[in-house]
Amino acid sequence: MSASPSPPQKARVLTGDRPTGPLHVGHLLGSLQRRVAMQDNHECFVIVADLHTLTTRPQRERVAELPRNVRAVVLDLLGAGIDPSKSTIYLQSGVPAVYDLAILLQMLIPVSHLRSLASLAQMAKVADLDDEHVSLGLLGYPVLQAADILMARAELIPVGGDNLAHVEIAREVAQRFNEMYAPVFPLPAALPSRVEMLPGIGPDGPAASKMSKSAGNTIELGDPPERVASKLRTLTGERLRGFVDALIDDREHAAATIAEHAAGKLDDAAVHDLLIDATEALLAPIRERRASFEADDGLIEEILVDGTIRAREVAYATLQRVREAMGLEPLWKGLIDVAQRRAEDRKRPY
Amino acid sequence: MSASPSPPQKARVLTGDRPTGPLHVGHLLGSLQRRVAMQDNHECFVIVADLHTLTTRPQRERVAELPRNVRAVVLDLLGAGIDPSKSTIYLQSGVPAVYDLAILLQMLIPVSHLRSLASLAQMAKVADLDDEHVSLGLLGYPVLQAADILMARAELIPVGGDNLAHVEIAREVAQRFNEMYAPVFPLPAALPSRVEMLPGIGPDGPAASKMSKSAGNTIELGDPPERVASKLRTLTGERLRGFVDALIDDREHAAATIAEHAAGKLDDAAVHDLLIDATEALLAPIRERRASFEADDGLIEEILVDGTIRAREVAYATLQRVREAMGLEPLWKGLIDVAQRRAEDRKRPY
Repeated sequence: MSASPSPPQKARVLTGDRPTGPLHVGHLLGSLQRRVAMQDNHECFVIVADLHTLTTRPQRERVAELPRNVRAVVLDLLGAGIDPSKSTIYLQSGVPAVYDLAILLQMLIPVSHLRSLASLAQMAKVADLDDEHVSLGLLGYPVLQAADILMARAELIPVGGDNLAHVEIAREVAQRFNEMYAPVFPLPAALPSRVEMLPGIGPDGPAASKMSKSAGNTIELGDPPERVASKLRTLTGERLRGFVDALIDDREHAAATIAEHAAGKLDDAAVHDLLIDATEALLAPIRERRASFEADDGLIEEILVDGTIRAREVAYATLQRVREAMGLEPLWKGLIDVAQRRAEDRKRPY
Repeated sequence: MSASPSPPQKARVLTGDRPTGPLHVGHLLGSLQRRVAMQDNHECFVIVADLHTLTTRPQRERVAELPRNVRAVVLDLLGAGIDPSKSTIYLQSGVPAVYDLAILLQMLIPVSHLRSLASLAQMAKVADLDDEHVSLGLLGYPVLQAADILMARAELIPVGGDNLAHVEIAREVAQRFNEMYAPVFPLPAALPSRVEMLPGIGPDGPAASKMSKSAGNTIELGDPPERVASKLRTLTGERLRGFVDALIDDREHAAATIAEHAAGKLDDAAVHDLLIDATEALLAPIRERRASFEADDGLIEEILVDGTIRAREVAYATLQRVREAMGLEPLWKGLIDVAQRRAEDRKRPY
């Protein structure tokens, strides 16, 4: 009798969000849709990266916002179609082995490679931190991300433009580890997102910024239809056309609309109506799923706890491999073995 | 009936060594003697700081030296008179909560406060690391030390001159934590060591350096009498007089000897004989204790494992207080509570 062949292992994917507030349409187009599309053929880990919020917002009152924000993010993920039977949604701070791994990986990356990252300077700027006040935690943020990625031994990392350099750091750390100790990690590769920059809502202007929580210019996944419509009606000019490009699936229709609006043949109100319909088609099923998850008392928490326990197992297994490869586990096991043998010897009869 | 009063709590002390090789007479005079003297009236934690060795020596072959070096350090500690029934000797890498704590404390210290530390530049120099190659782990070394100190909620930190600045960092982190979240930590204070700088063995010279493993100029605690004697006989000039100052307990006798030798009234050989006697008086009981611990197969390992398990409990308790104060524990408990209530609801009869 031959053993039945094990199914081919699906490639692991790690993605996620910092729980700083509800998710929005920019997240949906930039990453959530792709996560949903990937979850059938990949083993997806979706991190709710609460520790990462501490790198720029460690204040007690900001941490106190986490329970609400974490719940909101998980609800949005589920609403967007992340299926907890296929994807592991987990809370970063609830996975002890990630801290261990991050400390160990910090030994393998030169400070100089981190200091040159534009992304960290940008994060510091957004958080209003001058050079004197950037914490070691913020400098180490890409290494903590590397620990998240590598604890899952993830191969594919869907990212927005900001985080491309961080996946590079994770790759460098993995490569360094594999060379120095043993080939424990697959080298993670970034999957850059399709929609690089959905503009925020509001009238067009010289400083049209991308949709982001910190800019306060978002359409949230949980916004009711009338709020979505009134937000869309604030759009004008190039921003309005950016929305058409991002939200109208029919590419010919989108191109024609953009051309006609730019030429003044189609007024703002007509384009607003088009966008409102397209956005509703996108958000209505999400709103429905959100409502059904929310109605089932405790389900969101259960999903997150179950996912975190699953992530713990995965992370712990990886940490053991890491400690084994580095030689820390043999050190500890060697001590335990001798100590146990001694204890047994004492129990022996004369 | 009134409860019997609990005994006044002894102040906690944290000290320790990086296990890079056997301990020497410089350690003995600079710190071990004081640790032994303190252990009756203090609760001492003695860390074998193997993770700290990774900050400059992460290479696999260096980690592979740890089992031998760790055992050597513990044996030397026991030989010097550290009593495991009074002091907790533990292995740093075997205490998971320390990693968690280090990552959390990294959020509270500006990079700028670490970059200005001369001690780190010195460690990098000794390890032959130029600026480009200093790892994040080395930059974070004082924060990992802070985690060691604060996990034990230690109040007194006996240190050599090099580490004074690191205790300052631990104090700063503790103060910051207490202000931002809740008064969890006593503020640790450094106890600078009495003997600031025992010279290394060898003839006197312009670059007379202090006794250190990396300079290869030590008298090890485990050296047999004839090796100790032959090492002492290499001393000349100012170095020789430095040894007299450090090793001859009778201060009048030491001062007279130094004066006579400097004036040429006492030759090197006569001073060597004096020193050999004084050093033997110091090392003979240590050698005897070392031999008895070594003869008891598995005892060293048992002591280190037991101490590490005790340190785990202490560290875990502190980590829980830290997570509670920051708000991370309430976040996780909130999720667990709701998920459990849901599970119980499902078990209810109709």
